[in-house]
Amino acid sequence: MARVARALREEVHRANMALARSGLVMGTFGNVSGVDREAGLLAIKPSGVPYDALRPEHIVPVSLATGEVVDSDLRPSSDTPTHLELYRAFPSCGGVVHTHSAHATALAQAGLPVRCLGTTHADHFRGDVPVTRPLRKAEVAKDYERNTGLVIVETFRRKRISPDEVAAVLVASHGPFTWGQDAAHAVQNAEVLEYLARMDILVHAAAPRGVKRPAPFLVDAHYLRKHGPGAYYGQKGRK
Amino acid sequence: MARVARALREEVHRANMALARSGLVMGTFGNVSGVDREAGLLAIKPSGVPYDALRPEHIVPVSLATGEVVDSDLRPSSDTPTHLELYRAFPSCGGVVHTHSAHATALAQAGLPVRCLGTTHADHFRGDVPVTRPLRKAEVAKDYERNTGLVIVETFRRKRISPDEVAAVLVASHGPFTWGQDAAHAVQNAEVLEYLARMDILVHAAAPRGVKRPAPFLVDAHYLRKHGPGAYYGQKGRK
Amino acid sequence: MARVARALREEVHRANMALARSGLVMGTFGNVSGVDREAGLLAIKPSGVPYDALRPEHIVPVSLATGEVVDSDLRPSSDTPTHLELYRAFPSCGGVVHTHSAHATALAQAGLPVRCLGTTHADHFRGDVPVTRPLRKAEVAKDYERNTGLVIVETFRRKRISPDEVAAVLVASHGPFTWGQDAAHAVQNAEVLEYLARMDILVHAAAPRGVKRPAPFLVDAHYLRKHGPGAYYGQKGRK
Amino acid sequence: MARVARALREEVHRANMALARSGLVMGTFGNVSGVDREAGLLAIKPSGVPYDALRPEHIVPVSLATGEVVDSDLRPSSDTPTHLELYRAFPSCGGVVHTHSAHATALAQAGLPVRCLGTTHADHFRGDVPVTRPLRKAEVAKDYERNTGLVIVETFRRKRISPDEVAAVLVASHGPFTWGQDAAHAVQNAEVLEYLARMDILVHAAAPRGVKRPAPFLVDAHYLRKHGPGAYYGQKGRK
Repeated sequence: MARVARALREEVHRANMALARSGLVMGTFGNVSGVDREAGLLAIKPSGVPYDALRPEHIVPVSLATGEVVDSDLRPSSDTPTHLELYRAFPSCGGVVHTHSAHATALAQAGLPVRCLGTTHADHFRGDVPVTRPLRKAEVAKDYERNTGLVIVETFRRKRISPDEVAAVLVASHGPFTWGQDAAHAVQNAEVLEYLARMDILVHAAAPRGVKRPAPFLVDAHYLRKHGPGAYYGQKGRK
Repeated sequence: MARVARALREEVHRANMALARSGLVMGTFGNVSGVDREAGLLAIKPSGVPYDALRPEHIVPVSLATGEVVDSDLRPSSDTPTHLELYRAFPSCGGVVHTHSAHATALAQAGLPVRCLGTTHADHFRGDVPVTRPLRKAEVAKDYERNTGLVIVETFRRKRISPDEVAAVLVASHGPFTWGQDAAHAVQNAEVLEYLARMDILVHAAAPRGVKRPAPFLVDAHYLRKHGPGAYYGQKGRK
Repeated sequence: MARVARALREEVHRANMALARSGLVMGTFGNVSGVDREAGLLAIKPSGVPYDALRPEHIVPVSLATGEVVDSDLRPSSDTPTHLELYRAFPSCGGVVHTHSAHATALAQAGLPVRCLGTTHADHFRGDVPVTRPLRKAEVAKDYERNTGLVIVETFRRKRISPDEVAAVLVASHGPFTWGQDAAHAVQNAEVLEYLARMDILVHAAAPRGVKRPAPFLVDAHYLRKHGPGAYYGQKGRK
Repeated sequence: MARVARALREEVHRANMALARSGLVMGTFGNVSGVDREAGLLAIKPSGVPYDALRPEHIVPVSLATGEVVDSDLRPSSDTPTHLELYRAFPSCGGVVHTHSAHATALAQAGLPVRCLGTTHADHFRGDVPVTRPLRKAEVAKDYERNTGLVIVETFRRKRISPDEVAAVLVASHGPFTWGQDAAHAVQNAEVLEYLARMDILVHAAAPRGVKRPAPFLVDAHYLRKHGPGAYYGQKGRK
């Protein structure tokens, strides 16, 4: 198990450092985790450790089954229970990122989704990035971080959104979570989400009374051009 | 022909790298092409190749007549058919750029033109940068990228705009295309367009009820100061 | 006393240089002070000295009791009397920062608080960052800078805000002041405040008719997660 | 005279390079001039020369009396007649800057002044930075650049603004001009103006229905704290 943890720690460390370089985090805000489903472990940034002091051995392995720390003296990110619920509910999720990136967080604070307004969005996410309902008092008082994960899962179930097609969410009055096939892709999605949120707010500024949404057939065509079985973007299928 | 392709590939590679440095692209978004009309070839960025791995020999030559790849194993940018239609319809077009730059894309998503609000705009483009109509379902379902080019051409014809005087367009719910006498000038126009779009959105924020447009005689004076036969800007005509 | 002043000067110099690097100041705008309550001294940036020429020995010690310069030929920042009143009224205040950072200043100019709109805010400040009333003519005519400090103190008393829980204020038509346990933490709070003000203005742009505030139980939970006696963020209480 | 021109050329070259570094210009937009009133010369950036190729000997001396180029084969900036009128009308003006900086230009395009909304503004300019009326057709058709200067002068006379107290203007549908005691100070004022314009647009976004202006006694107190005979900012009058 030690060897599994080492590879996972290195992957998660690399992804955390990529997040730090991305400009999406300020101070110690933000965290990245990755998962090894065979080993039954996620691994995540320790709580409150500055990025410039972060080394692979600081990354904290946590049991997917019990939520307990494995083989570390450090306390994992306080958001760990949120990550845990996402791994449990979304079977293809291989990495999770949480940031307070300015534009995505502003929309979360406004209680607004990141609207799917064009092909840049549809290239990455098949429809709006939803915003959760606010947590109830009891959900905040006890197991707050776990309930944050559960309200994300509830949002995708109630709105019948596939977490594979929309790998991002805004938690109301809080901020964005993104995920992906591994920790590195989850970081890429955090960067894309912030860019889309920035453009959405620019559209709010330019067209305060609202805009005509792109037709579903345009959204689907772009999403499937990159992600469907008939994808013809990139060099896949070529040598 | 190999020699022609080499010079063109180098020019297009240089322009793609200039675009990457410009800050207008994120990840692998965006592409630049150039044309050699005598050789009957355009050359364009390959699909989905990251800029930091891009070398001149990766640039993909494509026949202007048939749209087929010439002398390359790589797949050209998926937007190639759009570029092709622009070269076919606009005889003086020597280079084409497509980006998802934030402010121009936001206006495209809002269905709004980049308004010609002042002399900075008029120094480069003689009037509004138009936004196309949305594509119809059938236009998206089949030959989507080609139809994107055709709707651009249609926009300029219907609005009687000269593509030589306004070398830029916003495709509705998509993003900007720019062009120029060669690939390098098309990139410059992409940078100018993003700057103008940014200022236009700032005007929307400062004056949400609209503004008084500059008089046509001011727009013409500025455009012709730089572009007309009586141009007196720069060191042209001097030693 | 010379030795005390030297350590304090170095701390305050370091914090001023951190402020300069933060991007919150333009030209010579902005100043940081620190305090040594045992020695009865504050130490502050000299007036109008550019950051790149600033050395520890330029930092000006000032008596907390009398407001007089101690052991320096330089004139202290013209805002010194404001800092003095904050140290006198807020017993746990160990450092003070004044900037004209763009977003916080814009809200001060609009007469609007930095609204507590989410957990990023609540992680640092327990509720809105208030804006003062405008100063009266007589308050500007005489002892202007001292009265700026007094109106800050009045704001916290009248609104019953604890300066330990909200370590920041906007002075109407002027700009932000922040404080903290020492000069370095006051600078961190200045950076956080600017980030929160930026997100608040983005929310104004995205939701001009106002937004639903987060429930007080969410604000308290986040604030106390980091600052209360039961704090469980970071590695405190761990080895 | 050659020696006079050399010193002036070097001063103006330095100021143009400072402007290029300031981030206020894009491409070859923008120009700086300086004046030697004893020698009867202004000196200005040549037209359309990129900043990275600009050397002191490229700076073009122009006679204040006749507007003719002195001792240079290069064409001066096409905006030279505007600069000339400012030097002629404003006796204490020692340097002039023209940019298309984004926020100041956006306000000029909206036909709005840079409102004096707080002390950051009042520290530099005693009241609003005005916007000119639009130029008439005849004023654009002939001697356009000279008429741009004349409409600036007219604006200050009609509104009874002292060009010493407000060293900046927005030309409607065009952009900002600033001035100062020499070319370097004019560049500083261009940077300050852009910062103030940025904050003004942020206030438009945060408070679209308008804001309460600071009382004139606050504006005067701040302006005179730095600029009046009783100024007590900085180290002047010390040692």
